[in-house]
Amino acid sequence: MTMNIDVTYTKSLKPKPIADNIAFGKHFSDHMAVIDYSEEKGWYDPRIVPYEPITLDPAAMIFHYGQTVFEGLKAYRTEDDRILLFRPEKNFRRLNLSSDRISIPTIDEEFALSCLKKLLEIEKDWIPTAEGNSLYIRPFIFSTEPNLSLAPSKTYQFMIILSPVGSYYKEGIQPVGIHVEDEYTRAVRGGTGTAKTAGNYAAAYKAQEKATQEGYSQVLWLDGVEKKYIEEVGSMNVFFKINGEVITPELSGSILEGITRMSIIEMLKDWGVPVIERRISLEELYDAYDKGQVEEAFGTGTAAVISPVGELNWDGRKMIINNKQIGELSQKLYDTLTGIQTGKVADPYDWTVEVK
Amino acid sequence: MTMNIDVTYTKSLKPKPIADNIAFGKHFSDHMAVIDYSEEKGWYDPRIVPYEPITLDPAAMIFHYGQTVFEGLKAYRTEDDRILLFRPEKNFRRLNLSSDRISIPTIDEEFALSCLKKLLEIEKDWIPTAEGNSLYIRPFIFSTEPNLSLAPSKTYQFMIILSPVGSYYKEGIQPVGIHVEDEYTRAVRGGTGTAKTAGNYAAAYKAQEKATQEGYSQVLWLDGVEKKYIEEVGSMNVFFKINGEVITPELSGSILEGITRMSIIEMLKDWGVPVIERRISLEELYDAYDKGQVEEAFGTGTAAVISPVGELNWDGRKMIINNKQIGELSQKLYDTLTGIQTGKVADPYDWTVEVK
Repeated sequence: MTMNIDVTYTKSLKPKPIADNIAFGKHFSDHMAVIDYSEEKGWYDPRIVPYEPITLDPAAMIFHYGQTVFEGLKAYRTEDDRILLFRPEKNFRRLNLSSDRISIPTIDEEFALSCLKKLLEIEKDWIPTAEGNSLYIRPFIFSTEPNLSLAPSKTYQFMIILSPVGSYYKEGIQPVGIHVEDEYTRAVRGGTGTAKTAGNYAAAYKAQEKATQEGYSQVLWLDGVEKKYIEEVGSMNVFFKINGEVITPELSGSILEGITRMSIIEMLKDWGVPVIERRISLEELYDAYDKGQVEEAFGTGTAAVISPVGELNWDGRKMIINNKQIGELSQKLYDTLTGIQTGKVADPYDWTVEVK
Repeated sequence: MTMNIDVTYTKSLKPKPIADNIAFGKHFSDHMAVIDYSEEKGWYDPRIVPYEPITLDPAAMIFHYGQTVFEGLKAYRTEDDRILLFRPEKNFRRLNLSSDRISIPTIDEEFALSCLKKLLEIEKDWIPTAEGNSLYIRPFIFSTEPNLSLAPSKTYQFMIILSPVGSYYKEGIQPVGIHVEDEYTRAVRGGTGTAKTAGNYAAAYKAQEKATQEGYSQVLWLDGVEKKYIEEVGSMNVFFKINGEVITPELSGSILEGITRMSIIEMLKDWGVPVIERRISLEELYDAYDKGQVEEAFGTGTAAVISPVGELNWDGRKMIINNKQIGELSQKLYDTLTGIQTGKVADPYDWTVEVK
């Protein structure tokens, strides 16, 4: 795709939220990127327009049969005022993998990324400068055809919206308490667990409600078949350091292939820390705990980067990890990865992409 | 809820589609019902307004995290010009059960039904009169809060739209061929399979694609855990008549509780036909077939009412049912149920509700 990206500028700029006090996902920049799709034209009319409402027929398929996928990534402003993205090509790759699962036509990944870069050039003043702040980027695609027939939509819209976000850890990193969910299921092999699609998230709220009621902040998800194996924590991938070795659940067909997950594994290998992707059951984890071998645990994702787990509760069987403190390795991973993302430490892996 | 339903009439009526040539789900009536929800007010401002587009912020949660539920039912016009609904209270009951699974606030079922009745009074000329035609009714709820935080929406909209539909069987009832799906999963216990929520439907297209490529019209879904037990056919419940007994998969926590399914079971019991809800594996079905005991098979749902299955293909193991003809019992169920729905035969069960 080598189409021209048409730009329409807004007539009135919005006030920007005050740094360090920015709630996640509630403020949006002045412009957004849009690309339309129809069966006849494919993806067409890429454009940057003022941030404005979406208007859809009440019969638009998104409201009924839910074909929609999304991505989440961040733009960081470096101390020397450069704009960095972190492995954005991986996000657009995954967007297409998600689309394929949900029967949405794929998009030219490089072109979608070039739209994002152009949008960021225009919106660069929306990238907060304060420590830990960033500009959250939300590409998404949704079905638009007004038709109640049960079949994939013939029309779609791709959009990118931008949202400045404050620091995830305003008061320092606090390990979280996790409720092990053994009733509700997030995903199962053959299902949509590997796709970033809306239905997975709505399905997870019910278990989150239970966790909150019990005083825990997140849910640990088990596999949908045997309800034995660990899959994810909240909307994050999960890692355990057990007896010197780092273990993360293997991509079994129901686990989201996190880009932070992938990067953590690559860093650990580079550092010579033993790391393995394999099935791990709750029983195995609790056995290791009883032997005093569970050293660290953490979730990984775009929002928190690293979210240490301080406590697990599996039907009353409680596990306190590393005295509810962030572990040494978790801290090093957090510092290095956020350092690379924000340009504070060298990027030996060539992960960051500068937006000029 | 005893709120007043405000009515705003459209200024220009649309032309109605020509009977017997009406494509499903593409034409919509002149008005729609709307009720808003906010945390502070609960459900409020019920109104009937001209059919018009929905306008939403691009960050509205429906586009990202997919909290949405829907229902489908039909209004029929009788030969003596009365308007009948079929067990509509069951649809609003199920809407609330779906909402509960997806963390959407429930709605007053009786009030929602009264909104539908009021809408139908205004739109009664949209109910087609031709044989087999009806007015398809689509109540749905979707999340509207503009917020990318991963938490249930604080605002929602409930809507009812109406779509005149032609006869499902324009050229008589044709038994369909079914592809047995053993790779993709529709639903699993603990998941959202019992809810009418958008994500389930988008997730099913991929398997439907495979079925279509192999020359079959629908997918037979197996359980997500063992991939052994029969769950549904396409978006319908499924029944088998084996050696004089009618068997349908029990509601296991991943099967939609169909209102047609429920009605078929009640009718069979009333007629003294042995009917049982239990797990049934594909192996059991094929064993019975080898013994010559599979007499009839059919799907049940609002759209088709009864959809006979003429052929199954499980990885090359083909089963031809009743010589690809509709079975005697299937035909009787179809005739009786559609007869009751359209007021042509007496309704001994008090299932129909007249809209005055």
